[in-house]
Amino acid sequence: MSITFDLSGCLSERLGRGALEEALLREKTSSLRPALERLAALRMAGEGHPEFLLLPDRRADLEPARDLAAALAERCDDVLILGTGGSSLGGQTLYALADLPLGPRHPRLHFVDNVDPFGFERLLDSLDMERTGVVAISKSGSTAETLCQLAVILEALIEAVDESRLAGQVAVITEPKESPLSNLADRWRLPRLKHDLGVGGRFSVLSVVGLLPALLAGLDAAALREGAAEILDQALGERGTDLEGPAAGAALAVLLAERGYSQTVLMPYVDRLADFGLWYRQLWAESLGKEGKGTTPIRALGPVDQHSQLQLYLQGPADKLFTLIRLETQGQGPRISPKIVEDPRLAYLAGRHMGDLLDAMARATAETLVRNGRPTRLLTLDRLDEFVLGGLFMHFMLETVLAAELLGVDAFDQPAVEEGKVLAREYLAASGAATS
Amino acid sequence: MSITFDLSGCLSERLGRGALEEALLREKTSSLRPALERLAALRMAGEGHPEFLLLPDRRADLEPARDLAAALAERCDDVLILGTGGSSLGGQTLYALADLPLGPRHPRLHFVDNVDPFGFERLLDSLDMERTGVVAISKSGSTAETLCQLAVILEALIEAVDESRLAGQVAVITEPKESPLSNLADRWRLPRLKHDLGVGGRFSVLSVVGLLPALLAGLDAAALREGAAEILDQALGERGTDLEGPAAGAALAVLLAERGYSQTVLMPYVDRLADFGLWYRQLWAESLGKEGKGTTPIRALGPVDQHSQLQLYLQGPADKLFTLIRLETQGQGPRISPKIVEDPRLAYLAGRHMGDLLDAMARATAETLVRNGRPTRLLTLDRLDEFVLGGLFMHFMLETVLAAELLGVDAFDQPAVEEGKVLAREYLAASGAATS
Repeated sequence: MSITFDLSGCLSERLGRGALEEALLREKTSSLRPALERLAALRMAGEGHPEFLLLPDRRADLEPARDLAAALAERCDDVLILGTGGSSLGGQTLYALADLPLGPRHPRLHFVDNVDPFGFERLLDSLDMERTGVVAISKSGSTAETLCQLAVILEALIEAVDESRLAGQVAVITEPKESPLSNLADRWRLPRLKHDLGVGGRFSVLSVVGLLPALLAGLDAAALREGAAEILDQALGERGTDLEGPAAGAALAVLLAERGYSQTVLMPYVDRLADFGLWYRQLWAESLGKEGKGTTPIRALGPVDQHSQLQLYLQGPADKLFTLIRLETQGQGPRISPKIVEDPRLAYLAGRHMGDLLDAMARATAETLVRNGRPTRLLTLDRLDEFVLGGLFMHFMLETVLAAELLGVDAFDQPAVEEGKVLAREYLAASGAATS
Repeated sequence: MSITFDLSGCLSERLGRGALEEALLREKTSSLRPALERLAALRMAGEGHPEFLLLPDRRADLEPARDLAAALAERCDDVLILGTGGSSLGGQTLYALADLPLGPRHPRLHFVDNVDPFGFERLLDSLDMERTGVVAISKSGSTAETLCQLAVILEALIEAVDESRLAGQVAVITEPKESPLSNLADRWRLPRLKHDLGVGGRFSVLSVVGLLPALLAGLDAAALREGAAEILDQALGERGTDLEGPAAGAALAVLLAERGYSQTVLMPYVDRLADFGLWYRQLWAESLGKEGKGTTPIRALGPVDQHSQLQLYLQGPADKLFTLIRLETQGQGPRISPKIVEDPRLAYLAGRHMGDLLDAMARATAETLVRNGRPTRLLTLDRLDEFVLGGLFMHFMLETVLAAELLGVDAFDQPAVEEGKVLAREYLAASGAATS
């Protein structure tokens, strides 16, 4: 795999006395050995919970997804991906990898994950409904925002094109059971892909939930799963408790949380991983934030956030664990002509490539954080493609599940969010009663 | 002003025993009276530090900015705004308010605030350089990223158009002193606007740094300043220590920080304020995060983050203060046709507008946070336009400056960020030596 992890910037040998001792980290990591063996057995068996572990080895679901993507791509210049949270963030992350502008065979994707009427109407106004496709994604089939969006768009489509064409432009990903969304799909005979019952939204990026958008954008879905499978092989194998693996990452976060490090900052120096930060943020927050436990995931982006957050990171409270991601970019990108930057104060730029500057900043920030006593993990990618991104997804899903194991919480539920949904429906009913 | 603040969800009367007592909040707020009087005197005098307080009453700098915007708009279909941190985030926030797609008189803006070679080349490839303008913004005139971007683009422009046309397509905002950027401007006789010496980047949104992009996008710059002036009138006037003002907001954040609330979440239920969250995040972090003090600003967006962060917010550690922003949207946006949503389980949606759903979710989430004992402040906007946004900018700048007063830190410096810059230059020099 082309991902390397350097945890040395989190340990006392570099950070100094009072910081985490390597022996302690190794001990905590080793305590995860039984959990790793359980997960390895599950994968070997090919069934059981958590099902997301089985996705990297699956291929049978790719063919229907490819067919649907091809059909939509033929009819549509734009495709709206309706869905929120785990039904959207994986696809968004993948889309950032697409080689834009896309060729004529690939529609533009729009991830519609909110219900702001202003932006929504602006988007609809900009589209040619005759050439616009829709994929509505909701595991339960009852997500209010997604159903609201779909209802409005269905009406707009019916106005613009013949009702008989709906089934060629609109598709659904939901669980194979009775629900408001599956009823809508039945009524208009919409094509649908099955949302795996045992794969929650935040673990669904390697299922058709993430892969259908990826296929629409021309990405290699099989390579994503192959990259994930390689990380699984490593993480669940003999060397799974090495300091490079997800078990060590989980142990690190939990040990630091016990010492008051309540926040974990993920800071890629790669624009195409900006949305990866959003995906990770849901994964970590929703899986661990329960029973008063968990730490707060923070999405940052380098170098731009050096001009926004670095002051706080270096001299604010020492309550954050940092994970910087750098991509080998030396010698890449446009070169800064010495003819333009003649100023001797800019000698450090003259003749350099933009990728040299980016890389120098990533390494300098990692080093500066360590010198200021802030625990910092440095991830290096030698390239960024579907294989590597699939590996990153799997690494962080495993890290999260193993952190839940150490914290003693269930990584797969989200018991708190129902209360607000019920209350919102009450308010909505009351406002309707008042205005109608 | 059309902004109302409700702090009741932070106080013991609603949150219960152990929460902040209103009397304590009022006492801490009142302790800011001398600071408010000092700021009021400064404004009255029309000079002194901090200078950002004087911007709302200034008009003389608008005319040159309008002229430059008009000249660029005539020659360009696209304008790149080069700059990072405070040289970019205010403009980005303002641009979100523009009525897109813009008319033919207004160029598309691209805020280039990073140095990822991949995205940068993709952007340049998509542009017609003959119709592309550039505004390079750097207060010091020595920001490495901005100079790197500008050098590459200058070379591309010189290749595409005659060198004599540079002065019609490229402009600069920087301090009126000798610097690498001002030298480049001299060399090609580029038009420039003055970056106010006494206004740091994160306080510069109401200066030409924010207003030039706003003018390019067709926004009303004077209305922005008028909204800010009205908030100043209120905040520095007799009722400045009321619970609705920035002084109370500062006191609230600091009192809660003392009790372990180490994070402050800003969560607008307005897509057009998503970038406002980024602007605020720099302001709060960089102004307060020093000497081990400060709290971590977190940018969220509703309702989408209910499907990502709300589980953590409700049941994770009780370490966050929440500020939700809602806009009056009842009855706005597309209506959900009862003919489409016949399912009785969707009766709560039938006949409702998208804005009804959005508003119900904002109010329900605020109430649910309070019911779960999480201190929550609710801001309501009756509309969103330049006047209101100008008011929001000023409110949060004052809140930040007053929080710094209470914490005993200097809101206007950022002493920690230099170390990493120096190291990055060393690495860059070393990599150059190795490869050249």
